[in-house]
Amino acid sequence: MDLSILAPVGAVVALLFAFFLSRRVMKADEGTDLMKKIAGAVRKGANAYLKRQYTGVAIFFAVMFVILLILAIAGFLTPFVPVAFLTGGFFSALSGFIGMKIATYANGRTANSASKSLNAGLRIAFSAGGVMGFVVVGLGLLDISIWYFFLKFWYSTVDVMQNEAAQVQAITSAMLTFGMGASSMALFARVGGGIFTKAADVGADLVGKVEAGIPEDDPRNPAVIADNVGDNVGDVAGMGADLYESYVGSIISTAALAVAAGLGFKGVVIPMSMAAIGILASIIGTFFVRTKENASQKNLLGSLRLGTWISAALIAVAAFPLIYFGLGAEKIGFYFAILSGLLAGILIGVVTEYYTSDSYKPTKKLAGTSSTGPATVIIGGLSLGMLSTVLPVVIVGASVLVSYFLSGGSDSYNNGLYGVGLSAVGMLATLGITLATDAYGPVADNAGGIAEMAHMGEEVRKRTDALDSLGNTTAATGKGFAIGSAALTALALIASYIAEIQVLKPDFNFNLTITNPPVLIGLFIGGVLPFLFAALTMDAVGRCAQKIVVEVRRQFREIKGLMTGEADPDYASCVDICTRSAQREMIAPAIVAVAAPIIVGLILGVNGVAGMLAGATVSGFILAVMMANSGGAWDNAKKYIESGEYGGKGSDNHKAAVVGDTVGDPFKDTSGPSINILIKLLSMVSIVFASVVLSFSLIK
Amino acid sequence: MDLSILAPVGAVVALLFAFFLSRRVMKADEGTDLMKKIAGAVRKGANAYLKRQYTGVAIFFAVMFVILLILAIAGFLTPFVPVAFLTGGFFSALSGFIGMKIATYANGRTANSASKSLNAGLRIAFSAGGVMGFVVVGLGLLDISIWYFFLKFWYSTVDVMQNEAAQVQAITSAMLTFGMGASSMALFARVGGGIFTKAADVGADLVGKVEAGIPEDDPRNPAVIADNVGDNVGDVAGMGADLYESYVGSIISTAALAVAAGLGFKGVVIPMSMAAIGILASIIGTFFVRTKENASQKNLLGSLRLGTWISAALIAVAAFPLIYFGLGAEKIGFYFAILSGLLAGILIGVVTEYYTSDSYKPTKKLAGTSSTGPATVIIGGLSLGMLSTVLPVVIVGASVLVSYFLSGGSDSYNNGLYGVGLSAVGMLATLGITLATDAYGPVADNAGGIAEMAHMGEEVRKRTDALDSLGNTTAATGKGFAIGSAALTALALIASYIAEIQVLKPDFNFNLTITNPPVLIGLFIGGVLPFLFAALTMDAVGRCAQKIVVEVRRQFREIKGLMTGEADPDYASCVDICTRSAQREMIAPAIVAVAAPIIVGLILGVNGVAGMLAGATVSGFILAVMMANSGGAWDNAKKYIESGEYGGKGSDNHKAAVVGDTVGDPFKDTSGPSINILIKLLSMVSIVFASVVLSFSLIK
Repeated sequence: MDLSILAPVGAVVALLFAFFLSRRVMKADEGTDLMKKIAGAVRKGANAYLKRQYTGVAIFFAVMFVILLILAIAGFLTPFVPVAFLTGGFFSALSGFIGMKIATYANGRTANSASKSLNAGLRIAFSAGGVMGFVVVGLGLLDISIWYFFLKFWYSTVDVMQNEAAQVQAITSAMLTFGMGASSMALFARVGGGIFTKAADVGADLVGKVEAGIPEDDPRNPAVIADNVGDNVGDVAGMGADLYESYVGSIISTAALAVAAGLGFKGVVIPMSMAAIGILASIIGTFFVRTKENASQKNLLGSLRLGTWISAALIAVAAFPLIYFGLGAEKIGFYFAILSGLLAGILIGVVTEYYTSDSYKPTKKLAGTSSTGPATVIIGGLSLGMLSTVLPVVIVGASVLVSYFLSGGSDSYNNGLYGVGLSAVGMLATLGITLATDAYGPVADNAGGIAEMAHMGEEVRKRTDALDSLGNTTAATGKGFAIGSAALTALALIASYIAEIQVLKPDFNFNLTITNPPVLIGLFIGGVLPFLFAALTMDAVGRCAQKIVVEVRRQFREIKGLMTGEADPDYASCVDICTRSAQREMIAPAIVAVAAPIIVGLILGVNGVAGMLAGATVSGFILAVMMANSGGAWDNAKKYIESGEYGGKGSDNHKAAVVGDTVGDPFKDTSGPSINILIKLLSMVSIVFASVVLSFSLIK
Repeated sequence: MDLSILAPVGAVVALLFAFFLSRRVMKADEGTDLMKKIAGAVRKGANAYLKRQYTGVAIFFAVMFVILLILAIAGFLTPFVPVAFLTGGFFSALSGFIGMKIATYANGRTANSASKSLNAGLRIAFSAGGVMGFVVVGLGLLDISIWYFFLKFWYSTVDVMQNEAAQVQAITSAMLTFGMGASSMALFARVGGGIFTKAADVGADLVGKVEAGIPEDDPRNPAVIADNVGDNVGDVAGMGADLYESYVGSIISTAALAVAAGLGFKGVVIPMSMAAIGILASIIGTFFVRTKENASQKNLLGSLRLGTWISAALIAVAAFPLIYFGLGAEKIGFYFAILSGLLAGILIGVVTEYYTSDSYKPTKKLAGTSSTGPATVIIGGLSLGMLSTVLPVVIVGASVLVSYFLSGGSDSYNNGLYGVGLSAVGMLATLGITLATDAYGPVADNAGGIAEMAHMGEEVRKRTDALDSLGNTTAATGKGFAIGSAALTALALIASYIAEIQVLKPDFNFNLTITNPPVLIGLFIGGVLPFLFAALTMDAVGRCAQKIVVEVRRQFREIKGLMTGEADPDYASCVDICTRSAQREMIAPAIVAVAAPIIVGLILGVNGVAGMLAGATVSGFILAVMMANSGGAWDNAKKYIESGEYGGKGSDNHKAAVVGDTVGDPFKDTSGPSINILIKLLSMVSIVFASVVLSFSLIK
């Protein structure tokens, strides 16, 4: 049975559904003129940022394209690679662009709908998130499908390969490289967006809340629009590009692992079909997301969860016949690999929620540390984050172990690795709805901002607050999901890297034992890269926030009547500062991520690169989970105090908690998520430059 | 030429020199009655702590002894192991005990001598540090020598082995296991002492400095004696036990690697002789540590550095004939391995100083972040710490690479590993004087405290401040040295672990490639252990500090006339709280460290354990460097502001910097250093339980 048609069908259905959702969003009323004006300002800022970002990224892609072209001409790469690199980047950018566009249209509309009912507000915000989710999976699968069919045609008609195995090898090898385009684009979107959003947020808070004593989202704060723009460019577009990359990466790396596992075209088609099944299941799941008026936060969260769980259950059911008929009854172990990934994704979400939601003990305890000042809040949050890394590691570890052995890894190593790849695909199969649930958060957050700025009244603000507060939880679980899937994808990519080397140089003498010094040193260097990356991105946020502070202070000082509400602040200047800074600050991390595998490769050779990839995946996974959870818990501990515990808003406890929240901002929204990209991009770059490293490395 | 006599000679010389130094300390006058009273109180507290700690530790050792005995009877271990375990623990405890004892005698004497001249103060403080340093190396090498000669006698006379290789194997294998005793003791000393010292420090500061507004070291603060006791039990005894363990571990693991490298007894004797040479060189070095009156901090630091560098130079010279004549001209590559370790130790010190001293840009910049409040201080300090991990990783990596390849690793893997072991020995050869320089710090710190409490006047306080401030720098570089040597030692121990498995089961089917799932999962689990450990120890400090806060508040409230100086606080109660808490809080981290390798081994097997050890070493090294350097930089940024920059003491900038310093306290003095022990103890436990794991593991 040829299942390959499933992928393009799934892709088109996803895009159509995204179109349907976007129509629903656009049909909603945007509200009063003031609301339109504010939403328009946010939209304008976001567009300006994206335009400048794409200009910068275009330069990077042009340079890389030329380098890849030269390497292709020199015979190190197939000619498809430079083009595949471009399409990977293009589709990733496009999905970010569309998702963010709709998000900026949905902000005001969500606020306005919330003035009618909670359910109406939820509907618009969730639909906007859904556009992001389904555009990501739709475009991702579309890109994969196009290349698959094109390459299959090419290698069976134009450049005919002798047998199926060789064909599959040539196809998957070329497809792998377009992942590097997606990864590079994701890096810029995540890092740039992350710096933008947190610099604006921190800058706005430091002067507005702390110095001037005006509330959050107050329209008198000149950085408030930049803050809202940041939510869109960072939390929506950045998150989308990140998961686009994981999604594509997991599918193509698993496809590439099918070669060594001897599964041929069938093995390539399975992950693509799984993705298609996931899309259909996710669409069905979205219809279960609705709520009653006056729903508690628990009900709201329950309704979002219900959608995800129904999707997961459908996938669990549908994956069985897929494997049974697609690969045969004797390969049914792969089904359990998929299940283990699916389950791991859900469990990581549960653990993340436990550590970051103020319904549970850890965050409540963290809120309590505010009684002895900011220092104990920081210590408590850091140790909470560190502690929270243990269970995700166990979950990912168990998932790898289960999928490897149930896929027959003890008999065939390559079957086991293919199983690990499938577990990553299984985890990401729910991406359509998971991302919808996740991208919903910043839309609701912004709706709250607009409600505040447009003075829409107590009741509306209460509703948007309910939506927003829930968004914090879904954002945290979404981050857990993003990093969990990044880790599994990175592991599949490492296996693909080694498989790629075996293809390029079948007699290469691997020594991947951990006591081989190049591997060991690679582990160390890989281990330190996430720390370097986190340091660079945190510093970037600090520098950029500093500029915002200076600018906001200047406006407070120089614009007469600003504090009394008689004059408008100059919002555009803050947006512009963030845009330019984020642009400039992206450069150093990008260079690290692209140069590290090449430099390490040229010195330590292939074994060293493999060590580096493993080290970066391990330490990156742990550090990213820690930073995301510390940040999430600080944020919610502050919100918990604001809800009236430990003295409430304005108390010394609250001030201490605000310090934690401010530290947590770059943790959870800049550095932590950026690490996801890093660990995948390192593998992608290693794969693309494998033949160069093979030829020129100092240690062979 | 039989060099084996060098080791016991070196050991005895070290102990004699330590005795000589201790006489010098004891001869000095302890000053006024008030000073004697204060110093006596500190001494009493420290003794009380040690007594209780040793009681607790005795229980642990008794339990472990019984377990090991049962395993020995069951045939899993040689009968020497349980006894060796005890002696390792005993000598480690003894060196901590002596070192701390002298330190507590030296505190008041240093303050009193400083009232005469700066040089006199330096002389006493440095001599006290020297006692710690030379007792550690003396007892360490003594223990090694005793076992070496005893086992050599045993296996050549009583239980005669067929050939040299078998003898060497049996000897080194038994010696390896007494490292576990030293490691276990070190764990309790470092973790317990670390919790004690920082709980007292943080607790004293939170109520005293922040709430009551009285200066540091003010005698009215009920926690002030506990704080001083903490410096002794944590920074002196804890540091000593840590490095005792690295010292012993590096020597015996290198000796064990000599077997596989085919070097026989000669290969065993080389690391022992290197240690002896290091002792003599260190003794010579100490005579160059002196200063002029009115010396600047730079001069003071210069004089301490001069001693270390002269020792290092002497070792570099003497190691050449050692290898040349000890192993033969064709093995001279090993000499370069020693050099690379020696150099790496010095370079890590330099990097640490760059990142943590306020003479350089990073800490100055960090001080500047205080202008925007505590949150930016925290972000700045964390990113500084993260950034500071890159160079140490490169240094250690380069050192491993150089020592491996120059030792002939490309021809003989085992020679290369022996070379890596020698580089660890080379790094630790300067330990006598390095530890003297390091343990000097807390003595000077306490002298300052006593000068303050005894109202000794401006001039004396200025001198002790000069000594103390320098102590901060040497403490930071000492920490860099401790973690650098721990990493190299841990690597040598991993190699020893694998060698041990090969001995136990020559046909064991290793699959240590990083893509083998048990190895990979081991890497993840190992990677997360330092984070877990850091979280547990930070939480412990937090909980214990909380109790101190409550107690100090109670005393301020209930003891009439305390704030006016008419009544004395109840110092003993704070000491008692810290003692009991530290005792209780040690248990969880100890269980993690001992149980993790056994549980991982029983599930994932030998390959999984090896992966775990590598993962823990990589992530532990990075995390420990980060925590030590963040903490050191925060401390010095605060001191920099106190020196008058950015508004000076009492300004908002200063308050923000104090938050950073408080967070840094458990970072640099509890969690960070504890990780050193963790990564070595994991290997030691793995080695001791290797045969159990081989027999019972789920995955073979």
